[in-house]
Amino acid sequence: LTIGVFDSGVGGLVMARAFRAALPAHDFLYLGDSLHVPYGPRSAETVYRLTLRAVDYLCRQDCELIVIACNTASASALRLIQQEYLPQNYPDRRVLGVIVPTIEAVAAGHYKRVGLLGTAFTVGSGVYAEELQKIDPQLKLHARAAPLLVPLAEYGALHHAQPVLEEYLAPLLEADIDSLILGCTHYPLFRPLIEKILPAGVRVISQDEAVPPKLTGYLKRHAALDARLKKNGKFRALLTDVTPSYHATGARLFGADVAFEKVAL
Amino acid sequence: LTIGVFDSGVGGLVMARAFRAALPAHDFLYLGDSLHVPYGPRSAETVYRLTLRAVDYLCRQDCELIVIACNTASASALRLIQQEYLPQNYPDRRVLGVIVPTIEAVAAGHYKRVGLLGTAFTVGSGVYAEELQKIDPQLKLHARAAPLLVPLAEYGALHHAQPVLEEYLAPLLEADIDSLILGCTHYPLFRPLIEKILPAGVRVISQDEAVPPKLTGYLKRHAALDARLKKNGKFRALLTDVTPSYHATGARLFGADVAFEKVAL
Repeated sequence: LTIGVFDSGVGGLVMARAFRAALPAHDFLYLGDSLHVPYGPRSAETVYRLTLRAVDYLCRQDCELIVIACNTASASALRLIQQEYLPQNYPDRRVLGVIVPTIEAVAAGHYKRVGLLGTAFTVGSGVYAEELQKIDPQLKLHARAAPLLVPLAEYGALHHAQPVLEEYLAPLLEADIDSLILGCTHYPLFRPLIEKILPAGVRVISQDEAVPPKLTGYLKRHAALDARLKKNGKFRALLTDVTPSYHATGARLFGADVAFEKVAL
Repeated sequence: LTIGVFDSGVGGLVMARAFRAALPAHDFLYLGDSLHVPYGPRSAETVYRLTLRAVDYLCRQDCELIVIACNTASASALRLIQQEYLPQNYPDRRVLGVIVPTIEAVAAGHYKRVGLLGTAFTVGSGVYAEELQKIDPQLKLHARAAPLLVPLAEYGALHHAQPVLEEYLAPLLEADIDSLILGCTHYPLFRPLIEKILPAGVRVISQDEAVPPKLTGYLKRHAALDARLKKNGKFRALLTDVTPSYHATGARLFGADVAFEKVAL
């Protein structure tokens, strides 16, 4: 049994790399739905259907634990998958998202005016606002959809990101945020640029830092599950569509060459 | 029987609007594969399969004449559809692309150093180079993939386009082009910005201008086909995924509200 990591494209490789660094002995199976990337602008119904299909595929590939690394997919589908789909179809499997671990990082920092950059879908879903409200009703969330960041990352055009980031961050700076959630797997790439725009003292909450310790903690609390997981340090990456440019993007995001295998879900 | 117009997303509405202006009495059925937009970064095999499925759908919807408005889909699939798929499956239907009409516009202008902006797929396919070579072996094509233009158009971020266009056009200006093909349905939106960057005298070849007269000419030469086409001035727009933001994008591209219907292919 293996840990599955699902993302809408190759962006989740940033998370996969962080998971491997935290759990170097564990095997990981990465699945990127590059046939349908980006998920951010698509409808709720479509994102839910695509996410369910991917989780089902990973379950059939003997993943006992699956991390949905994509915020859009987490926002759309995680609750229904955990509460209905898994109990009915794979009661012995576990699926985790990235949003709750991120909220926990905000809670630990006692932030009061939290900024969020995310896809149009993630921001529109209101999931972050809802979850933050639960931990602290006084907390104010200032969310901004940042749809150009994924293509800027995917096409290696970070040198055009500065004015785009300035526009997205302007209303958040005006609201005097004390912290900023990077609510999409691609956004850690923009962190150095974002930190130059943010005033000193605004804390950046990046999921490649916030989520891996939560995964490690989860496996410690579920030792029986952890004992069943393969630990050969292996990494396999599956994509639903493969082009030569994915290798370049994969190398850029992952920091190493990735041998992608094409699969049909 | 109706004229079908196919594009990978809502970008082809620019072309549909131009077709309606040229043929106001004709009925049009628009199909945008918004579930898989953008086609540009995907693999040849995937673009071919998706285009075939869309053409098949439009044939079953009683489209006798189908225009593939998407350059990526035209570059990938048009020849095989015309030479194999239609003869075997729908011998009485006709499918036209946008690339050959564009090449004819270049030929008519006797240009010698032609620039091309297109998706990574269109530029990588070499179709424009190949077709231009046929009309004039002396002609030099200077092609540049422009992957950020589609997201800039789709997300209404034209105000960020200037530095991106300057980067894409720099090698073409260095090559002293005398004309520039806008090789993607979204690009006419950037025309005013592009014309400010280009030196005076460089002619812009835009498909929303170049292709409609070719369609009109085709129908004049095929009067029997034209006589069978419905002429109630009706326009229907189908998408494979519909979100509220498509209405805004549709209105921006089409210049009018579009009532999208969701279909599964």
